[in-house]
Amino acid sequence: MDHVIFHIDEKEKSPLLLGNVKNLLADMTAEVEVLANGVAVIGYKSEEFINQMNSLKDQGVQFVACRNALNAHHILKEELFAFVSVIPAGVVELVEKQSSGYAYIKP
Amino acid sequence: MDHVIFHIDEKEKSPLLLGNVKNLLADMTAEVEVLANGVAVIGYKSEEFINQMNSLKDQGVQFVACRNALNAHHILKEELFAFVSVIPAGVVELVEKQSSGYAYIKP
Amino acid sequence: MDHVIFHIDEKEKSPLLLGNVKNLLADMTAEVEVLANGVAVIGYKSEEFINQMNSLKDQGVQFVACRNALNAHHILKEELFAFVSVIPAGVVELVEKQSSGYAYIKP
Repeated sequence: MDHVIFHIDEKEKSPLLLGNVKNLLADMTAEVEVLANGVAVIGYKSEEFINQMNSLKDQGVQFVACRNALNAHHILKEELFAFVSVIPAGVVELVEKQSSGYAYIKP
Repeated sequence: MDHVIFHIDEKEKSPLLLGNVKNLLADMTAEVEVLANGVAVIGYKSEEFINQMNSLKDQGVQFVACRNALNAHHILKEELFAFVSVIPAGVVELVEKQSSGYAYIKP
Repeated sequence: MDHVIFHIDEKEKSPLLLGNVKNLLADMTAEVEVLANGVAVIGYKSEEFINQMNSLKDQGVQFVACRNALNAHHILKEELFAFVSVIPAGVVELVEKQSSGYAYIKP
C-alpha cells in the first residue's frame, strides 16, 4: 500500500488540501497523514472544516499538528479537534516519514 | 536518467515553474512531467504560456492535468492545449511517480 | 544520519523556513541544506536574517543559492553573505539531493 504525507503551513490552503486528500482516497488505497505546522494548525480547530475532516478521519486519515506551531500561535491541544494528534516537531515528522517511504505532497 | 515531477496548483506560479523546467533541462538530462491541479490547470489554456510550453514539450516535457481540477473549474479537455494529457486524479499521479523514483519539486 | 533539503522560492517564507530549520535541529541530528531560487535569493543578503542564518550556519546548515535566480534578480555573488554558496541551477540540486536520499521540505 502507498503511504503519503501531506504538508500544510498556510491557512488558506486548507480547502484545497482537504479536497486533495478526498480525491486521493477516491482513486487509491493509501495510508495518509496530514501534517500541519506554521499558521495552518489553526485549521485544526476551525468549525468550517470539521465535517470534511471527520469524514476523512473515518477513512483512516491521520491529522497531526506540530507542537512548536501550536505554541507559536498560542493554541492549546485541548482546543483542537479530539482526533488530532500532536507531535513535538512537524519538520522532523516530514523527514522521518519520507525516510520510511512516504510520498510528500505540498498543496 | 533522472526523473522529476513538478507540481503546480497556483496560477501565479506558472512563469516561475516554466522557468524552473527550462533551467533544469539546460543543465541536466531528465524525464520531466509537469502535473497541474487546483486552479493552476487554467495555465494549460492560457495563450501567454503557449510558446514556452511548446518549446518545453518539444524537449520531451509531459504536461498533465488533473480531471478533478478541470471539473471543479468547468474546463473541458478540448479547451486545453492539444499536447496536454488528462488523468483522473493529480494527487494519485504525484504519489505514483514518487513511488517509482521521481524527485518532487513544488515551485 | 538523515539528510534534508529545504526549498524556498518566496521571499515572505524566509522567517518560516528559518524557524523550521531551527526546530528541526533542536529535535534531530541531520545534514541540512537550504536551497533558495526564484526571488527568495534576496533573503541571502537581507540583514534582518543574518543572525538566524549565522547561528544555523554554525550548526552546519548549508545555504545555497541558484545562479539563474541571482542573474534574474541582478544580484552579484559578492552581495550575498559570505557563507552562502552558489550553484548553477537550483532545480538540478533539488533533483540530485533527492536522488541521493535527501528528504524534501517546501515551507
